[in-house]
Amino acid sequence: MQYGYFDDARREYVITRPDTPKSWINYLGSRLYGGIITQNAGGYSFFRSGGMGRILRMRFNGVPLDQPGRYLYLRDDASGDYWSASWQPVGKSLETYRSTVRHGLGYSIFESEYAQIRSEFICFIPRGQAFEYWALTVTNTSSTPRQISVFSYAELANEWHFRQDLENLQYSQYIVQATFHDGMIHRRNNTNPGQNELYFGLAGAEIVSYDADRDTFLGNYRTQSNPIAVEQGRCANSSTLGDNSCASLHTVLNLVPGASHQVIFVLGIGSPTQSWHGLPSGKSILAEYATPDRLNHELSLIQNEWREHLDTLQVKTPDSDLNSMINVWHAYQTHMTFNWSRGVSLVEAGDRDGLGYRDTVQDMLAVTHSIPTPVEERLDLILTGQTSEGGGMPLVKPLSHRPGHEKAPDIEQYRSDDTLWLPITVSNFVFETGNLAYLDKVLPYADKNKATVFGHLKQALQFSIDHKGKNGLIQGLAADWNDCVKFGTTGESLFTTFLFYKGCVLVAELARLKGFESDAAWCETQAQTVKASIDAAGWDGEWFVRGISATGGKLGSKSNHEGKIYLESNVWAAISGAASREQARQCMDAVHEHLASEHGVALCEPPHTEPIPGVGLSLLVYPPSHKENGGIFCHSNSWAIVAECVLGRGDRAYEYYRSYLPARYNAQAEIHQAEPYVYCQFTYGKHTPRFGESRNPWLTGTASWTYVAVTQYLLGLQPALTGLKVNPCIPAAWDGFEVRRRFRGKWINLKVENPTHVQGGVKQIILNGNPIQGNIIPADQLLDENVAQVILG
Amino acid sequence: MQYGYFDDARREYVITRPDTPKSWINYLGSRLYGGIITQNAGGYSFFRSGGMGRILRMRFNGVPLDQPGRYLYLRDDASGDYWSASWQPVGKSLETYRSTVRHGLGYSIFESEYAQIRSEFICFIPRGQAFEYWALTVTNTSSTPRQISVFSYAELANEWHFRQDLENLQYSQYIVQATFHDGMIHRRNNTNPGQNELYFGLAGAEIVSYDADRDTFLGNYRTQSNPIAVEQGRCANSSTLGDNSCASLHTVLNLVPGASHQVIFVLGIGSPTQSWHGLPSGKSILAEYATPDRLNHELSLIQNEWREHLDTLQVKTPDSDLNSMINVWHAYQTHMTFNWSRGVSLVEAGDRDGLGYRDTVQDMLAVTHSIPTPVEERLDLILTGQTSEGGGMPLVKPLSHRPGHEKAPDIEQYRSDDTLWLPITVSNFVFETGNLAYLDKVLPYADKNKATVFGHLKQALQFSIDHKGKNGLIQGLAADWNDCVKFGTTGESLFTTFLFYKGCVLVAELARLKGFESDAAWCETQAQTVKASIDAAGWDGEWFVRGISATGGKLGSKSNHEGKIYLESNVWAAISGAASREQARQCMDAVHEHLASEHGVALCEPPHTEPIPGVGLSLLVYPPSHKENGGIFCHSNSWAIVAECVLGRGDRAYEYYRSYLPARYNAQAEIHQAEPYVYCQFTYGKHTPRFGESRNPWLTGTASWTYVAVTQYLLGLQPALTGLKVNPCIPAAWDGFEVRRRFRGKWINLKVENPTHVQGGVKQIILNGNPIQGNIIPADQLLDENVAQVILG
Repeated sequence: MQYGYFDDARREYVITRPDTPKSWINYLGSRLYGGIITQNAGGYSFFRSGGMGRILRMRFNGVPLDQPGRYLYLRDDASGDYWSASWQPVGKSLETYRSTVRHGLGYSIFESEYAQIRSEFICFIPRGQAFEYWALTVTNTSSTPRQISVFSYAELANEWHFRQDLENLQYSQYIVQATFHDGMIHRRNNTNPGQNELYFGLAGAEIVSYDADRDTFLGNYRTQSNPIAVEQGRCANSSTLGDNSCASLHTVLNLVPGASHQVIFVLGIGSPTQSWHGLPSGKSILAEYATPDRLNHELSLIQNEWREHLDTLQVKTPDSDLNSMINVWHAYQTHMTFNWSRGVSLVEAGDRDGLGYRDTVQDMLAVTHSIPTPVEERLDLILTGQTSEGGGMPLVKPLSHRPGHEKAPDIEQYRSDDTLWLPITVSNFVFETGNLAYLDKVLPYADKNKATVFGHLKQALQFSIDHKGKNGLIQGLAADWNDCVKFGTTGESLFTTFLFYKGCVLVAELARLKGFESDAAWCETQAQTVKASIDAAGWDGEWFVRGISATGGKLGSKSNHEGKIYLESNVWAAISGAASREQARQCMDAVHEHLASEHGVALCEPPHTEPIPGVGLSLLVYPPSHKENGGIFCHSNSWAIVAECVLGRGDRAYEYYRSYLPARYNAQAEIHQAEPYVYCQFTYGKHTPRFGESRNPWLTGTASWTYVAVTQYLLGLQPALTGLKVNPCIPAAWDGFEVRRRFRGKWINLKVENPTHVQGGVKQIILNGNPIQGNIIPADQLLDENVAQVILG
Repeated sequence: MQYGYFDDARREYVITRPDTPKSWINYLGSRLYGGIITQNAGGYSFFRSGGMGRILRMRFNGVPLDQPGRYLYLRDDASGDYWSASWQPVGKSLETYRSTVRHGLGYSIFESEYAQIRSEFICFIPRGQAFEYWALTVTNTSSTPRQISVFSYAELANEWHFRQDLENLQYSQYIVQATFHDGMIHRRNNTNPGQNELYFGLAGAEIVSYDADRDTFLGNYRTQSNPIAVEQGRCANSSTLGDNSCASLHTVLNLVPGASHQVIFVLGIGSPTQSWHGLPSGKSILAEYATPDRLNHELSLIQNEWREHLDTLQVKTPDSDLNSMINVWHAYQTHMTFNWSRGVSLVEAGDRDGLGYRDTVQDMLAVTHSIPTPVEERLDLILTGQTSEGGGMPLVKPLSHRPGHEKAPDIEQYRSDDTLWLPITVSNFVFETGNLAYLDKVLPYADKNKATVFGHLKQALQFSIDHKGKNGLIQGLAADWNDCVKFGTTGESLFTTFLFYKGCVLVAELARLKGFESDAAWCETQAQTVKASIDAAGWDGEWFVRGISATGGKLGSKSNHEGKIYLESNVWAAISGAASREQARQCMDAVHEHLASEHGVALCEPPHTEPIPGVGLSLLVYPPSHKENGGIFCHSNSWAIVAECVLGRGDRAYEYYRSYLPARYNAQAEIHQAEPYVYCQFTYGKHTPRFGESRNPWLTGTASWTYVAVTQYLLGLQPALTGLKVNPCIPAAWDGFEVRRRFRGKWINLKVENPTHVQGGVKQIILNGNPIQGNIIPADQLLDENVAQVILG
């Protein structure tokens, strides 16, 4: 079943059937003021923090699952019939109601046609502003004059903190004050001096009536599908003190045949009449911004901003799904994970307010080439979330983080992998930007003391060295990358151990580039030492074990009944280079045999149903093939692509890529269910009837690492200090592909040809007409615009 | 507007219009397995803990506000038309759908008639059992044969912990497993070995189809108002692994004209097929309990249990509202606060899982005569929540409390009043039961050491003595009774000071009865000492101040702009006896002048809009006349009744009683909005347009103290060590009243006559035909049944 299509020219996904299997959402705004919006205009918004700055309320896990939202009702005043500008919440029969939803980058447009009235509702948050536009154009397509009433409905959270609003009702139901004056609904409370006022106004038509009291607008025993005010054609002009507020403004449009009229609603934070904390008043926002011209201008600013972000890497391959994803939606998703971490979605209710350490370090990987300056800021921040011991704070809260003054976690609370992601991300940043001096920047640790960035990296390695187990491998601590597997302070994780090995290699490389020879030698010694331990204890005969418990029991061993083979240790054995080429090939073949499926690669096989002594397996709460219990955890699928590329096996890398590529399911939405333009956290695996259904879209490490897997490994464009390395690993069937990429402010137009249909191996590169040595396009030879012809073979 | 009536004979409140202004609820079950149910069958249930044992899910603050719930759908298979056994969730027009809801004690009955089909749906949790009955009788009142499909719908929480279920969706949406076998829906997860299985079965008809997957039953973009399964007349026989589960069983009834058929659904905790933790299997529950006879028997057990509880005090006064409340609903509410503390309602989402110290001590007061044994257990528990310093743990968690091993709060965290309620409650228990030896029982403190109950009482006084401020009054600490007023460790609370004085008097009295003369003298000295401090610093000229800040600023003083006069300090000045009679009269006159209104007595006047230096006023989050900010906080209204009775002013006491008596609003439900049979936490005060609307029904200290105010002060039946003291203080207009009361296992039939229309003062008591001296009916002269004639004058 197909519900929409990719409109790459407009950088939109167009939903032609609004009754999608799950809510298909889009993101709006910036980290100043952001929100999400579904294909039925459900969703919420917030100021600065999804958890602590809630503006529009959301009731999670509801039926329908995305209510309330940003609702505009239309009512034919002659007949009394009414509908909504998005299909839901009124939900007219789709036989009579035509709907097209355009999710664009930073905006969504809802086009509807019903009863010979056409409407176009556009919603977005202008660049750098703390308000949102809801603009509605109504057109009379009939041959008689029509009187159409328009009503807005915004259900405003009573409290800024999502949990206070949703749970602490004996308090939060009694704090709100909402009144109408100066042509706007004004909602305030006294809970937070920094953010206590909202306004909701309308321009382009006269306000005929209003409601600020939610239950007056809706009526008792009614829902957003049938508000009494809309049914009756008039609001009650209610205010509210206590209970729940809303913002409903009602206007009446008289349209002769063929006539159109646009009304513009704005919802913003701040006072209706006074500027506040540097933000303009609602009155001035209405006057300055709420005109059709300004709205179009602001929309074009957003579109331009995204074009600038995304133009930094555009591809043209034989795979149109890949193109749509990499050029638009996948790239957009990597920015969303960078912006919102794991804090804002229909699944993330608001509790994860802060930056998970490992999430954040990995999220930066995919956007470094696009927005290096914000990445550097974030990198600085997250480096100051490393403690002087070398491990990471599990959570860094940007709005309240105090480097040098945080309490370091107890050793049991550290995740063993958190700061081991830093060598990968920092070297990627240094190689992308060429800014080797970044390594000399001095930054504080979270708890005390400070060090250069290079010192931070070394300390990350030292933390692992300080926490080795009895086999000389790295302890798993509270968790490694897999939050549901706990080896504690005695058991060892092969995953972490391989990541540590990779870190040693990368830090050694940076040290050599800096001329820190003794540091480089130290790193290399550490790598050799741990490799010897891996050789002695890590190989299970056909693959690498996942970990070794304190009592010697193994996870991911064929001697087990369950969890015989795990994905994470084997892909990282190959990626890190710690495994021999033969071991890497053998273990990745075992992955293919035991873990791969038509919908992606499972985390382990068979899934667990019983405890394993000595290993904390909190994944036992999940049925087999769910989430971490042998589900297809998409983040780790990206590493399978990388590992196969490291092995030069492009066909298999591409097979893995296609198996979980959302766009591939565009015409099979009943299988994937989630948005076909977005990666999910996981897909139900083969041991459940839900096999193939995907869940937790948008905010997942899948976005960043799959982007890296495609662009740096499949297409093979890897930044290096001296230039852009080109090392594709593609399906043999491809004739080639093209990439336009920004690199250190210059533009490279890469044309890769695969005349002999190999899976990889660069035969020759011709840069601006001149053959170059090797496969690194030298940065110092780049013009502003460059053409690089790459011949594989 | 009137929505129902009191049916005192059946001990039911009968709702004749289901579209009440707010949800009007009832409580079901015991502390083993409990629940709430609204007049539209909305609500939830839980095992042992409202917060941590959630069974049926609730989405709080929704529209409509009480969904989901316990839903039974009826469908005319000939026409396809469908409705629900409760008005909502389908919500047919009330012009065609007739509904009568009978909230009884521990059960609710939903009678409906629609399309010539009558249904009666009864819901309750049998005594001592961990399952709930949903029994439906369908009657064909038409003259043609009818085929009626019946569908159940229970939306089962994914996780036991309410917050995990409602918020942590990236986890809780993937743990559930629900299947159909052995004639039952079986829902399980692996989250909590102590409580991981539920069953839902049906007896009395064949199961035709079923759904265990919520979204399959409802259908996408539908709600409980229009499930696709019901619309189509058949479930899809779905199971679920992950996402959300439900329990829907579908059966078909063929009814000839006039025929009735009963089907019985059961939802319980445990395995369908095996006994578990001492609870029977679902199979055996179905076999043993799911028959019409057994159901009727179990219902009669509940009714008998409540009759036994409530018969312990029954009244007959000229005020029929008072009679309905005291004889049935008000008494029932006091048991609900005793059972559920502040943890289970449509407002209390689940976070308050535990016993607030002061709430709990006060909640016992009203049920001591009815259920002395559970009260003694609770008293033991709460005494072990006192720390060795003498203060109270803010929260005592019965399921996990470890006396002797809890961490004592920091001094800043103590509430100054918590353990000062003990002297009142312990002496009430001793006087009710005559069990003076209870004072010798040795119980541990929360943190360390132990003492006799008498020792605990002394230590409560000592805690206050240890925390006096510079005026010699008692410090307010984190809060006194009013959680929104914080005087800290330096400022002093007059409220707490008067409560301390009252405590000294009561402990002295107990000491004298025990013969602890030096303790008695110590208490009396402490009382005199603090009284001198009150005389020196507490009087504001016309009333007592509320408190004195560290810097000398006063709350509740006429020198203020706001918060000039407060209720709490003045009522307790009178009640405690610390004020002179003249002061008491004068300050209570000031209360009447400044704080009293037609809907109750406000907490302060004028309400606050600005901070007061040195006093923590978290009430500033509330608009004026809301909650603690000058709202009518009903709990404290009960003290105004007591204070007036202490002064002998029965007319005014009764005026206060009537002003917030819920039953008084039975024909004015649009004003009170909440249930007319239940006290609320507060009523919006006169400075808001919502004046008179009442909020947060059921779980409030209002229940217990108002019951005490009516029974012990207005009607004047006060237990004493030697017998039952009779000291009514009634409106002069009353000719008298009658009470039947159990006292120490004997029954006293009291007939009070007021021939000269006084407000109080006992002229003579004739017990079983014999005049007695004084106004205490001597316990040692009681027969099994007694008649006491009391003449006022």
